[in-house]
Amino acid sequence: MTDRARSWWGWGWEDQALTAEQDRGLAELVGSWFGSGGVQIRPPPELDHVSLRRSRVTAPRSLQKICRTDREDRAAHTHGKAFRDVVRNLLGQLDNPPDLVAHPTTEAEVEAVLDWCCRDGLAAIPYGGGSSVTGGVEARVGDAYPGVVSIDLTALDRVLEVDRITRAARIQGGALGPVLEDQLRPHGLTLRHFPQSFEFSTLGGWLATRSGGHFATVYTHIDDLVESIRAITPAGLFESRRLPGSGAGPSPDRMLLGSEGTLGIITEAWMRLQDRPRWRGAASVHFSTHREGAEATRAIAQAALLPTNCRLLDSGEALLSAGTQVSGGLLVLGFESADHPVEAWLERALELCRDHGGTLPEGARYSDDGATTPDGEPAGPASREGASGTWRNTFLRAPYTRDALVRMGVIVDTFETACTWDRFTEFHASVTEAANQVVQRVCGAGMVTCRFTHVYPDGPAPYFSIFAPGRWGSQVSQWDEIKAAVSEAVLRSGGTITHHHSVGRDHRPWYDRQRPDPFADAFRAAKASLDPAGVLNPGVLLDPPN
Amino acid sequence: MTDRARSWWGWGWEDQALTAEQDRGLAELVGSWFGSGGVQIRPPPELDHVSLRRSRVTAPRSLQKICRTDREDRAAHTHGKAFRDVVRNLLGQLDNPPDLVAHPTTEAEVEAVLDWCCRDGLAAIPYGGGSSVTGGVEARVGDAYPGVVSIDLTALDRVLEVDRITRAARIQGGALGPVLEDQLRPHGLTLRHFPQSFEFSTLGGWLATRSGGHFATVYTHIDDLVESIRAITPAGLFESRRLPGSGAGPSPDRMLLGSEGTLGIITEAWMRLQDRPRWRGAASVHFSTHREGAEATRAIAQAALLPTNCRLLDSGEALLSAGTQVSGGLLVLGFESADHPVEAWLERALELCRDHGGTLPEGARYSDDGATTPDGEPAGPASREGASGTWRNTFLRAPYTRDALVRMGVIVDTFETACTWDRFTEFHASVTEAANQVVQRVCGAGMVTCRFTHVYPDGPAPYFSIFAPGRWGSQVSQWDEIKAAVSEAVLRSGGTITHHHSVGRDHRPWYDRQRPDPFADAFRAAKASLDPAGVLNPGVLLDPPN
Repeated sequence: MTDRARSWWGWGWEDQALTAEQDRGLAELVGSWFGSGGVQIRPPPELDHVSLRRSRVTAPRSLQKICRTDREDRAAHTHGKAFRDVVRNLLGQLDNPPDLVAHPTTEAEVEAVLDWCCRDGLAAIPYGGGSSVTGGVEARVGDAYPGVVSIDLTALDRVLEVDRITRAARIQGGALGPVLEDQLRPHGLTLRHFPQSFEFSTLGGWLATRSGGHFATVYTHIDDLVESIRAITPAGLFESRRLPGSGAGPSPDRMLLGSEGTLGIITEAWMRLQDRPRWRGAASVHFSTHREGAEATRAIAQAALLPTNCRLLDSGEALLSAGTQVSGGLLVLGFESADHPVEAWLERALELCRDHGGTLPEGARYSDDGATTPDGEPAGPASREGASGTWRNTFLRAPYTRDALVRMGVIVDTFETACTWDRFTEFHASVTEAANQVVQRVCGAGMVTCRFTHVYPDGPAPYFSIFAPGRWGSQVSQWDEIKAAVSEAVLRSGGTITHHHSVGRDHRPWYDRQRPDPFADAFRAAKASLDPAGVLNPGVLLDPPN
Repeated sequence: MTDRARSWWGWGWEDQALTAEQDRGLAELVGSWFGSGGVQIRPPPELDHVSLRRSRVTAPRSLQKICRTDREDRAAHTHGKAFRDVVRNLLGQLDNPPDLVAHPTTEAEVEAVLDWCCRDGLAAIPYGGGSSVTGGVEARVGDAYPGVVSIDLTALDRVLEVDRITRAARIQGGALGPVLEDQLRPHGLTLRHFPQSFEFSTLGGWLATRSGGHFATVYTHIDDLVESIRAITPAGLFESRRLPGSGAGPSPDRMLLGSEGTLGIITEAWMRLQDRPRWRGAASVHFSTHREGAEATRAIAQAALLPTNCRLLDSGEALLSAGTQVSGGLLVLGFESADHPVEAWLERALELCRDHGGTLPEGARYSDDGATTPDGEPAGPASREGASGTWRNTFLRAPYTRDALVRMGVIVDTFETACTWDRFTEFHASVTEAANQVVQRVCGAGMVTCRFTHVYPDGPAPYFSIFAPGRWGSQVSQWDEIKAAVSEAVLRSGGTITHHHSVGRDHRPWYDRQRPDPFADAFRAAKASLDPAGVLNPGVLLDPPN
């Protein structure tokens, strides 16, 4: 473990936050966007000044060594990392802290903590990296519980077994992204699942929320990288058989995937791995209209070329996250392989781009020739340079920048979804219009950008970003209004309320309308069977008891 | 509709059964295999001589026009098409015929039939093409039901909507393979899901049983070709939203996929389609040991080349189904694309084969150059010739040959599974040994062959075939003994009891041990919520009530 301090109120490492100078540069930019002149930068809150409700629970003696009720731990586990979480932290509004944070170090301790919660009727909230942006780890559980225990799983962080032949590993649910990748690296293997939260989210969290990762096509969700899952439920151990494929009844794994901590606590999984890639090919293609870019992207998605990266950025997004000026769209394309050069694949994808009006500026195409650095990474330029490289860096730094913007009073958030290609043009227009309208109404100014995070043969996963000047102290209600308007537009236009951010508590109103009613009933019945006391993450996916 | 007659007791079209001359040739071969001298060929049974239990139910007046209780229809809906089904038909053992066969022509009629069953407590068995090989459509429902209704869905056979942009179509659940492909062809589209039962199985059946199709890699199961499903459950309409991808809670579709008619009746689905392929590349590679063949197959599966066809046949299988003599194994490889030449893909796969000791006999490689016939099929040689072509023809004809063998008293069946690569060598050895032992013990002679039907980066789906001389009249109990011994070996060695044949009633003992107990409880609870009267396909996946 490291001595570096995690921010209790915002994203990531304290030492990675923007410097005072970077803050000032950003503030200038914000001022120029919104014409708001001098932008005030609020200081991060002092934890000592935040008041927390008294803890209502005491751990049984046998569990006391792994349980904490101190202010720091409870505050850090009160919220996820959504915009509204960071704002409330900055405002000192920690209304629903957990009463206690348990830190089990073994599966037996997970079981013991869960047993205790069931026995005493305490709400039990599984907590991985705490990166939820949908209220998924927050103790908003209603009034039926005498207390809430946040179960922090990050001590279960080991790769327990590696099967080099099959290319799979048995990994504990609490392992953060870098922690598990560090343990796989000596075997020349990698999970290659890189959600934006990679550094501060866990395998168990990815599985529970069906997170979206590195691969823009085919293996988009963590779902497809699973061989088997092991979970502790109040009804007993739920462990599926390790299989590359099966057709034996409905998939048990698929019941846990997306269950968001409501059915059990994922303690281990056998995960499918990749060899570390050696060959890469990347390019950034410019389009003079967004529609042409979307058509090219569709052609590539339907050609079964299966690029690793296939992210169409609109002009606003291209400027903000790739520093590229383009009138219609910028398609960031990437292929990778541990086995063979990818030129044939990239070449055909670029041909499809040209067929749809795409142009390739001088120097916008990179390839690696299979040479590797001593630690097995590709040595060529494809992974380092160009819009693709810029984009990746910006991608990982984005949450730190977000926190700085929040301190400047900016309302900044993302809405991610997916829809079929036949609807896309209208979908994009109506969601963008709804977002612009509500942002203007609520904030008087603002901008909306869009990129594709993943693409399928039958449709893209558009990801909208919103930036608007908030009123300090009212940002949460402003955000709620914006969120509701955009979510309505997404649902009305045929999208999903979430492609990979999960449902949590914040997406419930729209999720409830999206899922089939009989499915909701069946899921409720399944939950009652696995968690008869109803203690697991109440309010997520289903209503908490009254 | 056609006037061709379907066999009531065996596979497919009556006019496609082996001719008397083909029967004699096969009988000679069987005699030479088992040294059993003159092989007796039993005639197909006369339906008039088969006695059926009297029907115990009468349809409500409003449903009478779509209900039949005649001997022919009830007999044809009594069994699936497993070995033990065909044998029992030949022996006239139709112990559990449905009391009535309903033929709804609209979704409203499906609903009305199901309502009636719920009201009167009648077991309701959804019936598509009737190709189940696991007892999935048989009225073995226990004694708690006053009657059984088989619900034949093949009148719901239309493609209702085609979305050319997205490449998707809304298709009714009762459409047989050729019926739906005929309706997609004018749009230049194809589902390209070709299970061996293709001609006589339906979309709804494929979805309900998670069938395995054309693609040997990536899109192996029908699961991955689904955009949304619409089903009638006793608790109401279960319809998921049409989406290319979503992460909103556990997937509703995945609850229905593999539910085998126990939760509801699938009336429609939006399915992902393909453009018709123009370029193909195919090759047949010889290996002197099976192990080398398996290693080459693993290398290809882990290289993300994603062949359409990647079927390793052992020497027995190569001889029987591809007419090729080879000492260790024959790898039938195929690539296809509607978008681009596949030479680079095939070339690299062959390189991997050579690295693992594979050899390519003269003329064992074929390519199409993108030219097409007037109806959009590739015009080149790759789809017609070589071991790959022979294999495909044998594949589709196999069930007819099986029926002829059954009439000769041969015990002939298949066992399909999947396991991870690390276990495969031992898995293959121990399952083969168990199969050989039980076949020798029960039948005194016999042979066991193996091929891969599908392969994954983390393991193959081996498919074992068994041929043994049975004792006329005792084949079912002989088969039961063989089935039990092989299934035990599969479970013990870490495989799945079924990769794509489904669980039905016959796989229950092993399925019950394979699935996690808490999952079984949760699924039981989900079923009770959707089907409170417990009428849907009792005995499949879960025990029927006492």
